[in-house]
Amino acid sequence: MDLHSLRGAFAGRLLTGAGETAAFLTDWRRKWTGRCIAVAQPDRTEDVAAVLRWCAEHRIPVVPQGGNTGLSGGSTPDASGQTLVLSLTRLNRVRAVDPVNNTIEAEAGVTLKQVQDAALEAGRLFPLSLAAEGTCTIGGNLATNAGGVQVLRYGNARELCLGLEVVTAEGEIWSGLRGLRKDNTGYDLRDLFIGSEGTLGVITAAVLKLFPRPAAQVAAFVAVPSPAEAVELLQLAQRRLASSLTAFELIGDPCIGLVEKHVASARRPLTDRSPWYVLLEVSDATGEEHAAATAEGLLEAALSQELATDAAISTSLAQFNALWALREDISESQGAEGSSIKHDISLPISRIAEFIAGTDAAIAQAFPSVRMVVFGHLGDGNLHYNVSPPVGRTGPEHAAEFVALEGPMNRLVHDAVVERGGSICAEHGLGVLRRDESARYKSEVELKLMRKLKAAFDPLNLMNPAKVLP
Amino acid sequence: MDLHSLRGAFAGRLLTGAGETAAFLTDWRRKWTGRCIAVAQPDRTEDVAAVLRWCAEHRIPVVPQGGNTGLSGGSTPDASGQTLVLSLTRLNRVRAVDPVNNTIEAEAGVTLKQVQDAALEAGRLFPLSLAAEGTCTIGGNLATNAGGVQVLRYGNARELCLGLEVVTAEGEIWSGLRGLRKDNTGYDLRDLFIGSEGTLGVITAAVLKLFPRPAAQVAAFVAVPSPAEAVELLQLAQRRLASSLTAFELIGDPCIGLVEKHVASARRPLTDRSPWYVLLEVSDATGEEHAAATAEGLLEAALSQELATDAAISTSLAQFNALWALREDISESQGAEGSSIKHDISLPISRIAEFIAGTDAAIAQAFPSVRMVVFGHLGDGNLHYNVSPPVGRTGPEHAAEFVALEGPMNRLVHDAVVERGGSICAEHGLGVLRRDESARYKSEVELKLMRKLKAAFDPLNLMNPAKVLP
Repeated sequence: MDLHSLRGAFAGRLLTGAGETAAFLTDWRRKWTGRCIAVAQPDRTEDVAAVLRWCAEHRIPVVPQGGNTGLSGGSTPDASGQTLVLSLTRLNRVRAVDPVNNTIEAEAGVTLKQVQDAALEAGRLFPLSLAAEGTCTIGGNLATNAGGVQVLRYGNARELCLGLEVVTAEGEIWSGLRGLRKDNTGYDLRDLFIGSEGTLGVITAAVLKLFPRPAAQVAAFVAVPSPAEAVELLQLAQRRLASSLTAFELIGDPCIGLVEKHVASARRPLTDRSPWYVLLEVSDATGEEHAAATAEGLLEAALSQELATDAAISTSLAQFNALWALREDISESQGAEGSSIKHDISLPISRIAEFIAGTDAAIAQAFPSVRMVVFGHLGDGNLHYNVSPPVGRTGPEHAAEFVALEGPMNRLVHDAVVERGGSICAEHGLGVLRRDESARYKSEVELKLMRKLKAAFDPLNLMNPAKVLP
Repeated sequence: MDLHSLRGAFAGRLLTGAGETAAFLTDWRRKWTGRCIAVAQPDRTEDVAAVLRWCAEHRIPVVPQGGNTGLSGGSTPDASGQTLVLSLTRLNRVRAVDPVNNTIEAEAGVTLKQVQDAALEAGRLFPLSLAAEGTCTIGGNLATNAGGVQVLRYGNARELCLGLEVVTAEGEIWSGLRGLRKDNTGYDLRDLFIGSEGTLGVITAAVLKLFPRPAAQVAAFVAVPSPAEAVELLQLAQRRLASSLTAFELIGDPCIGLVEKHVASARRPLTDRSPWYVLLEVSDATGEEHAAATAEGLLEAALSQELATDAAISTSLAQFNALWALREDISESQGAEGSSIKHDISLPISRIAEFIAGTDAAIAQAFPSVRMVVFGHLGDGNLHYNVSPPVGRTGPEHAAEFVALEGPMNRLVHDAVVERGGSICAEHGLGVLRRDESARYKSEVELKLMRKLKAAFDPLNLMNPAKVLP
């Protein structure tokens, strides 16, 4: 491939050496590794457009990439070595913050943490929050419609976005950077590009919603007998707190056991063990006292209605952070326990308790001795319904035997999810990981409509090919 | 046209007589009247599909219609007499309410009021609320992405919808009726159909979000010196109340004057007149007392910061309703004052005060003596920036001279809106009213992308042709 013409076509970096490109070719879980003709890192939106025009002209497939922290392989090139990786990390300016309009305009390569910080500096909150926030980019968050722990109150990345700037497959710039809460002037291009994982065009900038910062926050760690009581507690909390309830996480006891084992600083906040816990968060506009009183009132009611058996409420920022750390350290602690088989699923909340009971039992029967590591955003109906190898079989020498279970276990879990009207991909994107599995469950009509969109926006099939759609 | 084959193709009513079809051929403002070959009222989704297959086979254009209450002519057929009106009003079942999942599934022809009532019966709130709610249908609300007075807290129709059932132009049924807060399994077809005004397919059912009912609500009517203070008051209210602030309406004094004149029961709640007012609503999860204290605390702060000069707070449901009536009666009172020229616009909230000042002055200069009737959803950046004829020139004999101003006045206002990054169609849909004007302001790239979508989903151009896109 003649890269000379590409090098001259845009301002920015063009990486071609194996040492330079390696970091862009493997996802951070090290599940997928590909090859590429080069990595282009354009400086500005106009340069992204120039790169895409060059790709269209030379029929070179493009793999857009943000922080490369995705969990579904959506930003890794394939093994052909014929694709160009388009890294957006040099588009890294916060273009504007408007605290009166409660909006921020940021380029695609700005990290999520930088967006949060810019909001904070303006006395505002940007509520999207997830484990990779120091590295993941807002462009990647939008391309995959990222979720996280505050969706219950503030919505997914989709709901937090008011406007987009996108470069099309033809290399044209669509400037839809509107900072408006209401705009009904045509088809919703914004939401079409959001969640399309770079297969319809490349997001280069966005206008995002900001919110007032809460005056106080309190976390509560609540022991509950089972997921059924956790769902009832959610109803009670929503009725009493409305949108002051900003997080509602379900955590199985084995998760806490893993965190205790692998994180030296971790402490159980309650004396007695319970099979399940809820971690909930109250964000209050009035102040500390009102936040604490609200949480205490809720938990008293929960204890008296036997929805909870015990509870601890944070009374300092340190305690608040320690409670959240128990939740946030689960993934890494599970990682320390050998391979894991993960399911990022969502269900109608009314079906979750019975799903967990039924599917736990089916897995125990089909795959004896595996360990369930179940936690997630119950308030959104989203579970990370994960599985670890049996005790004593966590070493690398057992990895192959466990990994062999992944296909049949995925099938069992996903069948159970779809039967109950759920989704097999709640917040992580399809990428390549769930592409075929998702297509298996979709109707022919839906696949046909998706293919029409792909053909209309990317007729040469150059935009992140073979992602999202088989 | 041989309607015999159509009559046999589906279950439902087929209206052909002039007396039967007349009500479907004129919009409720009586601004547009068209003709049709017939009005089809299918009974079920399968029958909608059968009608659309018949239309595709016979190349007959289709105008989908809900409650026929739209303000932009989106559901009126053209004058050709060659189109079929597809009325969805017989798809009128609430299919399911799931209070634990906080969802309701309703067919397209269910009125907004019926959806609200079904939610209420289940102890839940469906917050979409607008003047036509007794007649407009949820299908129409979604097709036009309707807004209303609670958008500040709960979002537009788009944000209230989790899943859709749609019949495509080919007459196939896409069942995307998911009741999930998180689902990233492919392109966002739902949001593409929402707001597309029946030009890409026909919405036949939806899964909608429900919310806990607030324990108490309080309304406050606040005198403010100018829109600039109203915007500052909005900031203050959002900081103190967060999402307990469920409505924030700006009302110019002339609006209240018109309501006083034309509505016998209307009473000004404040002794002294002020050039501008804010009507705000507090929805509280705790109770009456806390709601009142919250509102009082806010207004005390506003008075002491000189953002407000006077205020009244509702202390009973009757007072709450009376304050809201002042807002809701503006449109009809303006109607009683002769023709009106309306602008349904939105702006970044940070630009609104300066927009009103500058545009009021420009209109006063270009069109002396006309009367500004300005009100709207300031919390969403959405104004109904309306104009009435000069005093003494409101009779029908003056109508033509005022209507002649519509084009140039639209242009002046819309130019001012677009210059400031606003939208010329905030919550009413493009229909035919704003179709050409909207295209005038859009970039070629955006129009091209919209045309690609239209061609992909409706290659025969039979779905509500000549609406939305010129």
